[in-house]
Amino acid sequence: MMDPHRPVVGTVIGDPAGIGPEVVAMALTSGRVHACSVPLLIGSAAAMERAVMATGGTARVRAMRSVEPLSDDPAIIDILDTGALPDDDLPLGEDTARGGEATAQWLDEMDRLARDGTIAATVLAPISTGSLKQVGKLSKVISPAPGETYLVLVTGPLRVAHLTDHMPLRQVCEIITPDLILRALRALDAAMRGWGLPRRRIAVAGLNPHAAGSEELDGIAPGIERARAEGIDAIGPESPDAVFRQCIEGRYDMVLAMYHDQGHIAVKTWGFSGNSVIMVGAPYIHVSVAHGTAYDIVGTGKADPAMMLNAMRIGGTLASGAGFPDDV
Amino acid sequence: MMDPHRPVVGTVIGDPAGIGPEVVAMALTSGRVHACSVPLLIGSAAAMERAVMATGGTARVRAMRSVEPLSDDPAIIDILDTGALPDDDLPLGEDTARGGEATAQWLDEMDRLARDGTIAATVLAPISTGSLKQVGKLSKVISPAPGETYLVLVTGPLRVAHLTDHMPLRQVCEIITPDLILRALRALDAAMRGWGLPRRRIAVAGLNPHAAGSEELDGIAPGIERARAEGIDAIGPESPDAVFRQCIEGRYDMVLAMYHDQGHIAVKTWGFSGNSVIMVGAPYIHVSVAHGTAYDIVGTGKADPAMMLNAMRIGGTLASGAGFPDDV
Repeated sequence: MMDPHRPVVGTVIGDPAGIGPEVVAMALTSGRVHACSVPLLIGSAAAMERAVMATGGTARVRAMRSVEPLSDDPAIIDILDTGALPDDDLPLGEDTARGGEATAQWLDEMDRLARDGTIAATVLAPISTGSLKQVGKLSKVISPAPGETYLVLVTGPLRVAHLTDHMPLRQVCEIITPDLILRALRALDAAMRGWGLPRRRIAVAGLNPHAAGSEELDGIAPGIERARAEGIDAIGPESPDAVFRQCIEGRYDMVLAMYHDQGHIAVKTWGFSGNSVIMVGAPYIHVSVAHGTAYDIVGTGKADPAMMLNAMRIGGTLASGAGFPDDV
Repeated sequence: MMDPHRPVVGTVIGDPAGIGPEVVAMALTSGRVHACSVPLLIGSAAAMERAVMATGGTARVRAMRSVEPLSDDPAIIDILDTGALPDDDLPLGEDTARGGEATAQWLDEMDRLARDGTIAATVLAPISTGSLKQVGKLSKVISPAPGETYLVLVTGPLRVAHLTDHMPLRQVCEIITPDLILRALRALDAAMRGWGLPRRRIAVAGLNPHAAGSEELDGIAPGIERARAEGIDAIGPESPDAVFRQCIEGRYDMVLAMYHDQGHIAVKTWGFSGNSVIMVGAPYIHVSVAHGTAYDIVGTGKADPAMMLNAMRIGGTLASGAGFPDDV
């Protein structure tokens, strides 16, 4: 029954008080999600009904208590609603413990479905860390850990993986070793192979100006050498101020940045629009949107579904091994 | 005789084996340099004659041994040629000791003319560090020194000053103090005041992700506070991954980056074209182009004069206190 070109992709609707349900509703109604996947939502059916109304949509929301055969129809929104948030009576546009509790349960459900193979990829609409913190469940969100998981930002041809995330710069200088570089390159190459990218040229940014420092000599370059010896197409260390532009121009398929701002400055300065976030090293394909809950515009119909649509489409195409959509 | 809106700007033609003479010739012929300055070149008349030929120009080169009344005419290229390179017999497209020796003499001449007030601003076409190194004269080039001089990259609305330049990242973490931040903010505010910028909002980037670290608390924030107490419109520390995009969107008039790549990644990833480089803290206005000698295309007429034109125009407008040209 499964169409290998259209895998089942599970999307958590995000914090019910934010714009998540609205941008998900609009993305689904476009029909473009269905072109590359069979969608299943995880969340509150009542929140989705409100979101369809708020965005002027006409789709019917079909709530399921457990996963049944999917409608696979842009006019019907299939949602797995296990009752974490039975009514749509949350105040919109603010953090609440109930919103956080529901989000945490949906993340658990997403994880279970991905691990048992019911869904081939997971997508996350904007959640609220504030709501999750209120119930002590922030740890439910997959977060990057050096040597294990890597945040990849994608904006068109610019794809940037991060060796480290929210780590003080001083500490970044201390932890770079050939082994850490090698592990990151292995994880990236394996992920890109699974996504179906025909070329997997990974440029490794240096740490210092013009990639000329001791960390490059002692840590980065030997790590690249070991990766190349394993057949990984790793290049560098490259000058950090040039490597991102070179990626935009098509010279590489991925840049491995050494620290949070090295990659984030490039992506956010070049252009925020269209960004998706992929967590490489997670046990399944996991894509999220780069924007937040935008509490100030919830319910106004002003939310732009472009990033959500991109994230849901990327989930589908990567899970089927078809690479990135041409226009993402 | 001096028109305050069109100050005399002295431009060193750059390494005679590179594209400097060509882009200078094309920039001058456009007439747009003359709209905001009275230009004087410093370099080799023979090299300029060759460059005019190579670019299909018709301007006449007028060589002077010492500064005489200037022609102020786009059809005549006034050049101060003190005989450092009497003939145009250098091999094009390669580093030479003679090219380096000549460049060094022209830089000395430029410095002398700027200090004695003959020229109100200095502009530098692409030089070759390789040629200068061959004669041990690299020190003639004004380079950034933390606490004294600051490299400012300008690409349209994105203007980025750098607290440090080619310094290992590890060392940058060590040297940030309130005093260093304050000195940089004073120098930038004074420079922007002299340039005639009506607003001088300087955003200070943090060092760490989301500007949340010990260096922000102990070094950057107290430095900003002291600057604000002196009436300087300093803002921050701001999240490094957001501050450059905010500057592009018009929220600030300058960003102070903590390290080379923080600023260079933003500028070079956003778009290289149009970049000019200003050295703040030098004893006079000093502008240079962000591109190099492009040895591979010397003499082909393919060199793009856009950046050189911008640099020469910026020299004129900043020296007359008219701010940046609207289209730069």
